[in-house]
Amino acid sequence: MTFRIGMLIFPDITQLDMTGPHEVFTKMPDTEVMTLWKTLDPVTAGGGMRILPDVTFETCPALDLICVPGGAGMNPLLNDEETLNFIRKQAETAQYVTSVCTGSLVLGAAGLLKGKRATCHWLSRDMLKEFGAIPDASRVVIDGKFISGGGVTSGIDFGLTVAAEILGEDKAKAIQLGIEYAPDPPFNAGVPETAGQDIEQATRDAARARQEERLALVQQAAAKL
Amino acid sequence: MTFRIGMLIFPDITQLDMTGPHEVFTKMPDTEVMTLWKTLDPVTAGGGMRILPDVTFETCPALDLICVPGGAGMNPLLNDEETLNFIRKQAETAQYVTSVCTGSLVLGAAGLLKGKRATCHWLSRDMLKEFGAIPDASRVVIDGKFISGGGVTSGIDFGLTVAAEILGEDKAKAIQLGIEYAPDPPFNAGVPETAGQDIEQATRDAARARQEERLALVQQAAAKL
Repeated sequence: MTFRIGMLIFPDITQLDMTGPHEVFTKMPDTEVMTLWKTLDPVTAGGGMRILPDVTFETCPALDLICVPGGAGMNPLLNDEETLNFIRKQAETAQYVTSVCTGSLVLGAAGLLKGKRATCHWLSRDMLKEFGAIPDASRVVIDGKFISGGGVTSGIDFGLTVAAEILGEDKAKAIQLGIEYAPDPPFNAGVPETAGQDIEQATRDAARARQEERLALVQQAAAKL
Repeated sequence: MTFRIGMLIFPDITQLDMTGPHEVFTKMPDTEVMTLWKTLDPVTAGGGMRILPDVTFETCPALDLICVPGGAGMNPLLNDEETLNFIRKQAETAQYVTSVCTGSLVLGAAGLLKGKRATCHWLSRDMLKEFGAIPDASRVVIDGKFISGGGVTSGIDFGLTVAAEILGEDKAKAIQLGIEYAPDPPFNAGVPETAGQDIEQATRDAARARQEERLALVQQAAAKL
């Protein structure tokens, strides 16, 4: 039996949220990985890269794993019933319901994370509380069938964790060796605690408008649950 | 002045070689990042993801940085004069000539790495010698205007290193914080030395046919230099 993985894509997605785990997932044997969106038209990511959806909400088969990535473009999805209904329907039968980065807020808006532990990009993690979820600062969080990864690059750690859940540790290690994942960042600035106050503050300042809009949309979505 | 970055894409590319640094590069201020190939038709990566090229070899402007990613599909590029000539021409005027993964073999085939230190995916790193390059097992290698990253995921370390070269350390750190790059692999199997002999041998066995074909094509390309 082919294991079917569907990864949501949408305008203004942070493509690395999706492309990191996509690379891991496509190296899993007997696994089909598809990108999905409302139409088959190219989707333009936040950085301008254009990716083609493989299936639409209508043509997408029942998935064994659904993954919702994040990025600035998830803001409008928080109150988009078409997308939320698609996710809810797939989540009923999927073995795993997963997210990377701010994708967990979309799972929250779909009403799927009540009482569940989940993670999110550090800038938006606290917003999970609005949906009754329990924010967890771990890089990858497993709570039953729900698996979430933190911000952007955590999608690779997330992907390998998922691969190990499904295939066992040895097959996940073989994928890790294949993608030479022995990370060696040139700096130690990946989380606010190590980046230093100036860099953290500059990041918060630059994101303020988007984050304020996001919080309002999260509250609006949470009020409907 | 906009800093122009062009990233080669091609059929059967390992998309994460490209999408990792693409995410970093698109977060650099005053920077334009474009994917490029022979035509504007969608390019299908090794794992099936379809990406649209932004420009062709003909419409591509003079680049400040050219980046050649890798993947199984670089084998045919080793003796593809159209691609090699495009890279040679851009390399003459580019400030930086770069690669991720087995993309360094394509730079070698273009005759650009004679006497230069460079890295490559661990499985193919020794082949750099055929082009007169000096293989270096570091995750990111800088030799003058030539910057190379190792296998697949090293593209993120590579991207941040490039960002620091161009913008300085603080701006690179801000990008690192934005993409929450505090990697925490679930296993320690990213290089043969830590993956264990069984997993290394299985990876070598699975790759044998492609690697034998690659070596023959590398030697054919090297003979023309």
